[in-house]
Amino acid sequence: MDRETARVEAFSDGVFGIAMTLLVLEFHVPQLEHGNPDVRRQLVWALLQLWPSAIAFLLTFGTVLIMWINHHGLFKHAHGADNRLLFANGFLLLIVTFVPFPTWVLAEYLDRAAANVAATFYCATFVLVSVSYNLLLWSVIVNRKHDDPRSGRIIQRVRRAYRWGFVAYAIAAVVSMFWPYVGVAICFSLWPIWGMLRYYEREMKT
Amino acid sequence: MDRETARVEAFSDGVFGIAMTLLVLEFHVPQLEHGNPDVRRQLVWALLQLWPSAIAFLLTFGTVLIMWINHHGLFKHAHGADNRLLFANGFLLLIVTFVPFPTWVLAEYLDRAAANVAATFYCATFVLVSVSYNLLLWSVIVNRKHDDPRSGRIIQRVRRAYRWGFVAYAIAAVVSMFWPYVGVAICFSLWPIWGMLRYYEREMKT
Amino acid sequence: MDRETARVEAFSDGVFGIAMTLLVLEFHVPQLEHGNPDVRRQLVWALLQLWPSAIAFLLTFGTVLIMWINHHGLFKHAHGADNRLLFANGFLLLIVTFVPFPTWVLAEYLDRAAANVAATFYCATFVLVSVSYNLLLWSVIVNRKHDDPRSGRIIQRVRRAYRWGFVAYAIAAVVSMFWPYVGVAICFSLWPIWGMLRYYEREMKT
Amino acid sequence: MDRETARVEAFSDGVFGIAMTLLVLEFHVPQLEHGNPDVRRQLVWALLQLWPSAIAFLLTFGTVLIMWINHHGLFKHAHGADNRLLFANGFLLLIVTFVPFPTWVLAEYLDRAAANVAATFYCATFVLVSVSYNLLLWSVIVNRKHDDPRSGRIIQRVRRAYRWGFVAYAIAAVVSMFWPYVGVAICFSLWPIWGMLRYYEREMKT
Repeated sequence: MDRETARVEAFSDGVFGIAMTLLVLEFHVPQLEHGNPDVRRQLVWALLQLWPSAIAFLLTFGTVLIMWINHHGLFKHAHGADNRLLFANGFLLLIVTFVPFPTWVLAEYLDRAAANVAATFYCATFVLVSVSYNLLLWSVIVNRKHDDPRSGRIIQRVRRAYRWGFVAYAIAAVVSMFWPYVGVAICFSLWPIWGMLRYYEREMKT
Repeated sequence: MDRETARVEAFSDGVFGIAMTLLVLEFHVPQLEHGNPDVRRQLVWALLQLWPSAIAFLLTFGTVLIMWINHHGLFKHAHGADNRLLFANGFLLLIVTFVPFPTWVLAEYLDRAAANVAATFYCATFVLVSVSYNLLLWSVIVNRKHDDPRSGRIIQRVRRAYRWGFVAYAIAAVVSMFWPYVGVAICFSLWPIWGMLRYYEREMKT
Repeated sequence: MDRETARVEAFSDGVFGIAMTLLVLEFHVPQLEHGNPDVRRQLVWALLQLWPSAIAFLLTFGTVLIMWINHHGLFKHAHGADNRLLFANGFLLLIVTFVPFPTWVLAEYLDRAAANVAATFYCATFVLVSVSYNLLLWSVIVNRKHDDPRSGRIIQRVRRAYRWGFVAYAIAAVVSMFWPYVGVAICFSLWPIWGMLRYYEREMKT
Repeated sequence: MDRETARVEAFSDGVFGIAMTLLVLEFHVPQLEHGNPDVRRQLVWALLQLWPSAIAFLLTFGTVLIMWINHHGLFKHAHGADNRLLFANGFLLLIVTFVPFPTWVLAEYLDRAAANVAATFYCATFVLVSVSYNLLLWSVIVNRKHDDPRSGRIIQRVRRAYRWGFVAYAIAAVVSMFWPYVGVAICFSLWPIWGMLRYYEREMKT
């Protein structure tokens, strides 16, 4: 992996990192009046009431972390940063910075009547995430030196996983129009797949 | 490219990355009352009403991404980071961090009577962007070792593109006082030129 | 320390850095009316009234700085970034980005009747911080090449410090339910231990 | 300069970069009513009314940029990152992240009766900036290998500049209690000194 690719990675890391850190701004310190006799109980209660923000924080953080780990894995196979890779990566970063917004919408509306709208919006965003990873994979494959059979086998496996990922998210988006909880559950059931997807074989590492 | 230049690049990447990531703060979760019978339709409507924010987000993201790719290309020719380069780069970063503001103003007023004011403000900012890239190019040329004829030819081409870019943005700023859509269209018609400007020849890469 | 570990470090540094920098957003410029005859005295007073924000700023900044220095020390012993290290580090970053929130709650309520609630919340967060550092240490130990006896001795010392740290924070969380000031004091009394914990011996450095 | 120092530099660069980028959040898009017949003139006027934000933006950006360039210069002489350097650098970063706040206060009150309070607050912050740079210089000197006479001569020159800088800022803080414009002018009159302070001789570079 050469110097240019390293710069693209470092830039992307910055964007991933900031997207993750901005999430804490969603937590607001509960404002209770001074001189309130029952302030202790109320503060406990107010902190417990922050649970939707806590869930949104955890979900988004986990999602972006897993996206970052996959980005990390994918770039192990990148050689050289041409314009194709720069734009595919740019599109992916566009989606990364956007992901917090549908997550907040989901957290706000999941326990209400409009849950299916919020869940469809959320799953549709992940269809875009999937498209952006497929594009990045494609631009990595085009740039790749074709001399390593093991790398080729791994790329094939990753490619298949990404394609089925796209299909799964599209199904989730349609399903969540009618059963929002099922749609969101499909999205999260894919976490372990992305978290565990291996981008190198143990022997390659040595 | 030496270590000092790499540090300047990494610092600039951080500023570019943060400028791009802060944009998602423009999206606000729609606040609908609890117990509203028609909340589904209203949430769909409220999300659709965010289109000006979405356009501002896309335009600014694309602009800063293209500026970053050009910054990336320009630094391939930089050798050593003297005070001249540090200040030229600092001026460019000043404009980079400012770019989101005129974009938000444009998104707010483009469909209203004050469109020409917003468009002129927007195009005038790009005149400054152009000035900053010309300054950075100049400081890169001054520091360059004069031993590579291919690098010289490329620099000449880039220089010509930057000069005509300055002229085009100045014209756009004047035109947008009267026909705002035409002025903005001139700005965006230059995107492909900046996106495709080659800073190295295929042979140099090998 | 190889290239992959360096990337994880750089990414973590970004998250630490942003968490520290976002704190200044807590300071709001005092808004006094124009034409106020006694505006000088009032501005002095308004600036002095910002002391809780100043304390929150200093405490959080110091805490995150010390966490970063320990992260820095721990990674000196890391060799290779497998999924275990990536997830342990990801959990730690989750807590890092969250730390500002309990600090703000503490600053808001430490001088009021609900001080024990805020202090318990604060100390409980540090129990999580301690858990995340123990997890990261564990994943570093598993990846470590077992060929350096000095590194082994240091790791033993760090491990003991981390375990006792967990116990101390758990005690602080319980104590602060009744005596909030004592609980918080226990937390800060551990600062010098973390600040001075040596991750290498002087001879190793040479 | 070794790998550890490079990591401290990269971390500091992140903090400097974010502090600079957050400034654009100070600009708010003017909100004019829809259907206003005179909206063009009002938008021009509203944008012109943002001049205090523009000045605050420019001053802070310039100040942090110059601080960054000096940090860059100082680290050229740093060898190894011990706890002393980490804490001196941490104190400096604390002040860096704080600098935007007194700048905003100054921009808000410089044209009003409380100008001397705001100016004293502003200059006092720069006394702290000066203290932090003197501390960092000291920790760099202690770590330095004593084998380069040219490096020694430069360090002497930088040391003298930093000491006189401290004196100048202290005088500015006292003067601005009575003549705010003079105090602020003293602060900015030092910009060229910091901007031009040379941390290496031309021969060293080769």
